[in-house]
Order: sequence, then C-alpha cells, then structure tokens
Amino acid sequence: MASRFDPLAVKAMVFDTFGTVVDWRGSIIAEGEWYWGPEKGVDVDWPVFADAWRGKYRPFMNKVRTEELPWTKLDDLHRMALEECFVEFNVTHLSDADKQHLNFVWHRLNAWPDTSSGLARLRSRYVIAPLSNGNLSLLTEMAKFAGLPWDCILGSDLFLHFKPDPETYLGAAAILGFEPSQVMMTAAHVNDLNAARELGLRTAYVHRPLEFGPGGETPRPADGDFDVVADDFRDMATKLGL
Amino acid sequence: MASRFDPLAVKAMVFDTFGTVVDWRGSIIAEGEWYWGPEKGVDVDWPVFADAWRGKYRPFMNKVRTEELPWTKLDDLHRMALEECFVEFNVTHLSDADKQHLNFVWHRLNAWPDTSSGLARLRSRYVIAPLSNGNLSLLTEMAKFAGLPWDCILGSDLFLHFKPDPETYLGAAAILGFEPSQVMMTAAHVNDLNAARELGLRTAYVHRPLEFGPGGETPRPADGDFDVVADDFRDMATKLGL
Repeated sequence: MASRFDPLAVKAMVFDTFGTVVDWRGSIIAEGEWYWGPEKGVDVDWPVFADAWRGKYRPFMNKVRTEELPWTKLDDLHRMALEECFVEFNVTHLSDADKQHLNFVWHRLNAWPDTSSGLARLRSRYVIAPLSNGNLSLLTEMAKFAGLPWDCILGSDLFLHFKPDPETYLGAAAILGFEPSQVMMTAAHVNDLNAARELGLRTAYVHRPLEFGPGGETPRPADGDFDVVADDFRDMATKLGL
Repeated sequence: MASRFDPLAVKAMVFDTFGTVVDWRGSIIAEGEWYWGPEKGVDVDWPVFADAWRGKYRPFMNKVRTEELPWTKLDDLHRMALEECFVEFNVTHLSDADKQHLNFVWHRLNAWPDTSSGLARLRSRYVIAPLSNGNLSLLTEMAKFAGLPWDCILGSDLFLHFKPDPETYLGAAAILGFEPSQVMMTAAHVNDLNAARELGLRTAYVHRPLEFGPGGETPRPADGDFDVVADDFRDMATKLGL
C-alpha cells in the first residue's frame, strides 16, 4: 500500500473519460434515436448497437497493445469497429461523410450532471486533465461540446500507448512535470486505478452506476479501497476539502 | 501566395505565447521589483536582467535545433540561461529552491489586457491552443495563472522540436486532426508567421508594441501582409466577424 493520503501533496488529477466523465452510452443512444434513425434511416436497436460498438473497443485496442496493429488513434479504431457493426446490423446505405459523422459521435458525448461543477471545484486546487484512450483531437472537441474545464488535454496519441500500459500513467506525470505520487488517477473503473496505483500514482474512484445502462451496475468499492471513493465529482471535491 | 482567405474555412487558431499572448518582459520586471529585489536581495536592474535572460532564449534553442544539445525542454533551457545571468549579474546567494522558483517566473506571466476577452470570442468559433516553444507544463501553469481559456495545450515537448522547425506547425495541425490550411498561426512576430505560411497554414498578426518595452517597438506590417493584421485580440475577433 502507498503511504497515508495527503490531499495537499497531490498536484494534478487525471481522469479516465468514457464512463467516468461522460455518459458515452446514453449519448450515443440519444443521438441515434433522435437523428440517425429518423433522419438517416439507421433503424437499429440503439442500446444494442451502442453496446456492440463499445464492445469492440478493448479488443481493437489490444490489437495495438500486442502490436498486431501499429499505433492507431482511437478515432480510427472506432471507425474499424463501426464498419464491423454496419455488417452485423445490416446498415448498408450511409455515405462516407455520414459514416465519418457518426464515427465522431465519440466527440459529442454529454457529461454526467455533476461533471462540470465538480471539475470546476477540483480545478481550483489541482491541475486537471483527461488521461484517456481517446486521441487529443477527440478529447478537445468533446471538452468544447460538453463544457469540460480541463487545464490541458492528455490523449493517448501523446504517448503512442493505450491504458493500462505504464507509458500512459508515467508519461502523464512526466509531461505535467510532477512525480507519479503527486498525480491522482480518477476513474469509475477499478482496473484503471489499480494499474495507476502500481506505478505510484494516487487513486480516486467515482461511482457511475448508469454507465452500462439500467441493470448494468457494477459493485461500489469500499471506502478504503482507494485514496478517495466518491459518489460523483461534487462528492469528490467535498471529500478533498474543496 | 495562398488562396483567398475564408474565415469559415479555418477550424483552429494556434498562438505564439511569449510576447503575443503574455507580457513576459513586464511580468518578470514586476516580480523582480516587488519580490526578488526587496524580499530576496537580488539587487539587479530588472529591465536589463529580463532582457539579458530573454536574449539567451534563441541561442539556447538553436543549440537544440542544431543538435549541439539533445532535446531539452524550455524550462531547462531557461535554467541554463539563468545560471549564466547569475554569473553576469553577480547573483551568488540564492538557494536552489529560490533559483527554481525564479526560473518558473515563466509560468507566472501576465496576459496582455485584451487577451482573455479576445480569446474567449475567438474560442466561440475556433479550437484555440498555444503553439509555443514552452513545454506543456509551463504553458498549463501559465494558463491557470493568467486565465487563458485554451481548448488544449500544444507545447514543444509534444513534438520534440522548437519553432520554426516544420515539425511544430505540421505536428500541431496533425494532432488537432486538421489540414494545415485549416489552422491559423497567430503571432506578434513575422518570422513565426512566415514559417507557418510556407507550410500552408493561415496567418494572423497581432501588434504588440510594448513587448520589448518603451522604445522597443517593431514596425507594424501592412494590412495585406497576412490573412489578418490586428491591433489586439479583440480587434482580431472583430475582423474575423466574431
């Protein structure tokens, strides 16, 4: 275990993004149901489509992590996965411009309701940045779309690695100019936090029971499992004394 | 010459920082005169000291650009230059912690008076980011200190090159996901703009007559010399129809 947690020894908080900061599933379903279905004739079951698309996320990243594929940014992996979904869901009529626009729905994800106000409070003491498998341009456009008050954007294309490769966590600390112990990884996913902790980063868990939709809830860790365990980002700010 | 300028074809504006966005000279003089002189006994002529320190900026970067030095981030070049200034100005009594803090005055520079409000208007249409020879951590702390509303931070340590190396301008366009012609370089320095234009970027000049202090004024280019020629960032926003 790391030494006793001191919130004032932390200088930067870096955040997993998909599921932790933004509601990828609800956002894709919403855009599908109000736009891609009625306007573009993509008549699929959007919750099933969103889950299928996201289900290909880790397998495609692992192709890069195991060097089956050369470095490929997440936008391009999303597109490869989307093409597979088009086959599986029998979507055959979209133009290339429409496919590109649908693929960039990952740039147009809504924040959870507590995100903007919670991040604003965390930002008053810490440097805050996403540390996501998304590429910098995806995360930059997402921040504009969703109103995320980041101090800077750390995308996986800065490190040419995806989490949980150590190059991402250690690279983030290095480029921010801090020791790993001065950086706190924040995520709704215990595997992300465990990988960061093994490298000496501090850890903050935020519970996102709706990430995978109704009935998809994952168990909430116990309060002592990470340096901070919070119900949302406002609760996290309060627990850090902000 | 590039084709006719269309403000709506531009997607991102990237900004030189020292002198263009922040008043490095006035900020260093001010901190020297209210803090380093009276509190720490650094009894130098602060305008002369600031100019001497900054005068070593380009020679040190050129050592990296010509590979006399390996890649070295600007924080570390600033420190090497500062050590030379300490010898020249006979400053011999500072602790290492004080030297480090003085060196990071480059993280604590004030914006020009029009910067924050002008950038906020530009940000309403464009992705805005610094494209500076500073490193990401320097620029991130500067943005917090000076209230700069960047969408993301592009430091030279993302590219391992200093301007005017082409890797910086083309690397910025690539990581933002845009063509060079969709990116507008913004600077108070014509050499920076000319280098960007040669690579296909759009160019915006902002006049900063006080960068080098009273009497240091450089001539203002003619209106047609760049895609936009503006007196400050509010004027630039107006000239772009914002």
